[in-house]
Amino acid sequence: MSITTEPRPAVALREGAFGPARELVCRECGTTRPLGPHYACHECFGPLEIGYDFGPVTREQIESGPANIWRYKALLPVPDDIESSPNLEPGFTRLLQAHNLGRELGIANLWVKDDSTNPTNSFKDRVVACALSAAREFGSRVFACPSTGNLANAVAAAGARAGIRTVVFIPSDLETPKQVNSAVFTENLVAVDGTYDDVNKLASEIAGEEDGWAFVNVNVRPFYAEGSKTLGYEIAEQLGWRLPDQIVIPVASGSQLTKVHKAFQELIALGLVEDKPYRVFGAQAEGCSPVATAFAAGVDAIRPVKPDTIAKSLAIGNPADGVYVLDIARQTGGTVEQVSDDEIRAGIVLLARTEGIFTETAGGTTVATLKKLVDTGVLDPALETVVINTGHGLKTLDAVSGRVGPVATIAPTYDAFAASGIA
Amino acid sequence: MSITTEPRPAVALREGAFGPARELVCRECGTTRPLGPHYACHECFGPLEIGYDFGPVTREQIESGPANIWRYKALLPVPDDIESSPNLEPGFTRLLQAHNLGRELGIANLWVKDDSTNPTNSFKDRVVACALSAAREFGSRVFACPSTGNLANAVAAAGARAGIRTVVFIPSDLETPKQVNSAVFTENLVAVDGTYDDVNKLASEIAGEEDGWAFVNVNVRPFYAEGSKTLGYEIAEQLGWRLPDQIVIPVASGSQLTKVHKAFQELIALGLVEDKPYRVFGAQAEGCSPVATAFAAGVDAIRPVKPDTIAKSLAIGNPADGVYVLDIARQTGGTVEQVSDDEIRAGIVLLARTEGIFTETAGGTTVATLKKLVDTGVLDPALETVVINTGHGLKTLDAVSGRVGPVATIAPTYDAFAASGIA
Repeated sequence: MSITTEPRPAVALREGAFGPARELVCRECGTTRPLGPHYACHECFGPLEIGYDFGPVTREQIESGPANIWRYKALLPVPDDIESSPNLEPGFTRLLQAHNLGRELGIANLWVKDDSTNPTNSFKDRVVACALSAAREFGSRVFACPSTGNLANAVAAAGARAGIRTVVFIPSDLETPKQVNSAVFTENLVAVDGTYDDVNKLASEIAGEEDGWAFVNVNVRPFYAEGSKTLGYEIAEQLGWRLPDQIVIPVASGSQLTKVHKAFQELIALGLVEDKPYRVFGAQAEGCSPVATAFAAGVDAIRPVKPDTIAKSLAIGNPADGVYVLDIARQTGGTVEQVSDDEIRAGIVLLARTEGIFTETAGGTTVATLKKLVDTGVLDPALETVVINTGHGLKTLDAVSGRVGPVATIAPTYDAFAASGIA
Repeated sequence: MSITTEPRPAVALREGAFGPARELVCRECGTTRPLGPHYACHECFGPLEIGYDFGPVTREQIESGPANIWRYKALLPVPDDIESSPNLEPGFTRLLQAHNLGRELGIANLWVKDDSTNPTNSFKDRVVACALSAAREFGSRVFACPSTGNLANAVAAAGARAGIRTVVFIPSDLETPKQVNSAVFTENLVAVDGTYDDVNKLASEIAGEEDGWAFVNVNVRPFYAEGSKTLGYEIAEQLGWRLPDQIVIPVASGSQLTKVHKAFQELIALGLVEDKPYRVFGAQAEGCSPVATAFAAGVDAIRPVKPDTIAKSLAIGNPADGVYVLDIARQTGGTVEQVSDDEIRAGIVLLARTEGIFTETAGGTTVATLKKLVDTGVLDPALETVVINTGHGLKTLDAVSGRVGPVATIAPTYDAFAASGIA
C-alpha cells in the first residue's frame, strides 16, 4: 500500500461538511493537510488527527440537544445538520451509580458508564456514526470494515439504516453466531481465508486501491476515532459538568482512552468544566498486554505481542495508540494494569450480580482491573471513580458459560422445592 | 392452589406506597379489595387490575421527569420516591422513524418503538421494575419468576441491582446460552424437570404456600402488568403528545396489548392527548395463534393450543388476556393476525436490513404481521403507524442463523477481492 494512492473524496466537499473541524494534523510532526479521507501524514507517516477551531460552546446549547451523541456536534467533525441524516443515533447511555459494586470493592463513590445499551450494544456505534458522516460527506459508495465483532455489527447496522452499501470482512473461521450478528444487517459479509491480521491488511489494500470505499478504521479513521470523545463528554455532563477523580478504561488500540482524555481537556479549555487533576487508568488482558507491560517496565517502546485471551475485542497485539496511552497514564498519575482470563470471567459475574449489567469480556477486564487497582492500593478508594463498560455480554456468552448455571435441579413439585433448601 | 392461602404483605403498607393506585378491581365482576399481593378476585376468581385515583397530571410534569419509565410515576402503582430506590431504570427507549422499512412495505409514515435497548434488552424490564417496587413495598424477601427467557433475565438483573434475593425457575432442558443469560445475574437459578407449564404451576404453588415471596407474574401480577402501560405513554409523548392511527403489538398473554390501549385511554381521559380513533392490531405466530384463530372465526371463546413456533417469547397456549385482546381489536377496527415461522425469520432480516435493528422472534412476528396486514389491504398504508419491537435478536440467534451468512469466501489478497465481483 502506498500513501500516494490514497483515495480522494468522490465529491467536492460542501461548506460546513465537518462542522468545527478545520484540517488534519499529524500527531507526530504537526504537519497539516486539508480534510479528506486520509489517515497517515505525507511527511512522516504518523497518524493524522482532526484539528478544530471551536466557536463558543455552552452547557445550555448541549443540554438542549438530542439524547444522543449529536448533542455534542459542535465538538465533532460532523455538519450542523447531522441529525437530519439517518443513522443509529448512539450515545447518551446511562451513567449508573454503582453502590453495590462500590461496596463490594470498597470504593465510596463509583460510577459505571454503560455503553452496552447502544443500538448494537457497544461503544463502536459512537465511532461508526462519526465515520458514517465522513463517508457521506466524501461521497463514498461503500461503507466497510474488517472486524470480528462489535465493529462489524455497528458498521453493518449503521449502513443499513443510512441506506449505504456495506461490506464487512471477517476471518472465515469466525464462529457462526458472530457471523449472524453482522450478516443479519448486510448482504455483503465477506469471509476471508486468513487471520484477522490478514483481513486487516486486505482492508488497507482495498482502501488504497478502490475509489469510493470508506473503511471506517482505515481511511476515515481520524473522523471515526473522534466518536470516542463523546464518552468523555457524557461522563462529565452526567456527573453534573464535573470531571471524575479517577477513570478506568479498556485498552485495545488505545484510541478510546486517548480520546476520553482529549474530551476532558477540551471541556476544560472551553470552560465547560472546572480544571482539576484526574487519573487515567488503562485495562488490558494478560493475554494481550503490550501497553501494560511497557508501563510496568517503565519503557516507552511497545513490543508487539501475539494475542491469546478471551477478551477478543481487546486483542490488538500492536496497538496504534499505545504510546499515547503510556503518556497519558504517566502524566495523570494513572497506570496501565493487566488481569488474567479468570479474573476477567470473575469481573463479568461480579458486575452482573452487583449492578444487573451483563458485560462482554472487555468490560470484565475493566472491572477486574478496577478491583486489582483497589486491592493493590494503586487506586484511591476514597475518590470519585468511573469505570467504562464498552459492550454486551450476550456477544461473549462462552466466557462465563462454564462458570454460572443452575444451583439445583428439582422435580416439578412443591415438596421437591421445600426439600431443596432454596426457600 | 387455594385463594384463601394467598400471602399477605409481610409489613404494614406505608403511606403512598402505591402512588395513585387505590385498590384492586376485578376485571370480570368489578369487586374491589385493598391493595395487596393478590391476583385473583375472591368472589369470581377473575383477574385483578389496579384501580387509580389520578390527580391532575400535566405534560410539563412528565417532561421534567427522568429519561426512564418513572417520568410516568404519577400514572403507575409506585411511590413518589421511586427514583431513589435502586432499579434498572428501564424505558424511554427510542421511537425510530422507519423510512426504509416504510418504503419497503409501502407505508407512508411508519415508526418502530424499539424496546431492545432496555437494560436487559426487552420490554420485560418495564413490568419487572413495577413488580420490584411492589415487592419492596410488601416487604418481600424473595423476588422470583418462572421463565425461559426475557422475564428471567429481567428479574435476575433487577433483583441484583436492587439487592433483593432472586430465585428464577426454568425448565431443566433450557439451552445453555439461555441459562447463562440469567445465571450470570443470580446465584439461584433453579432447574425444574418438566415443561414450562410445570414450572409455571410450581411457581403458583410456591406463591400460595410461602410468605415473603413475590412472583412477578403471579402474586404481584396486577402491579407488574401496569408496567406495559409505559410503552403507550412513551409512544404518545414521543409522537409529540399524539396517538398514532394504527399500532401493531405482539400477543403472548395479551397483557401488553391491553395495557397499551389502557394507556392511550388514560391519556385521553386526563386531557394529555386529543381523543381520536386508532386501530389496534395483534400479532401472533401460526404455531401459537389462539387469539388470531378466535378473531378469524368471529368467536369470543379462545381455545387453548399447544405451542409450536420459533417465537418462544410469544408461545403462551392459553393467553390470560386473550379475550380482552379480541375486544380491543374489534372495538378499534383492528384485527389479530398470524404469520408463519418463515415469515417471522424474514421479518427479522427485513427490519435489520432496513433500519439496523436486530429483533428477536417476537419482533419478527410483529414486522411480518405488519407486512401481511399491508399486503392484504387490512392496514391503511396512508395512516401513521407504530410497530413495537419487544426484544433483542441476540437472544434468538438460531432463528436466522441458517438464513444469513457470508456472500463469498475469498483468499486474503487484493487480486482475489478484485476477482470476486464484490467491488
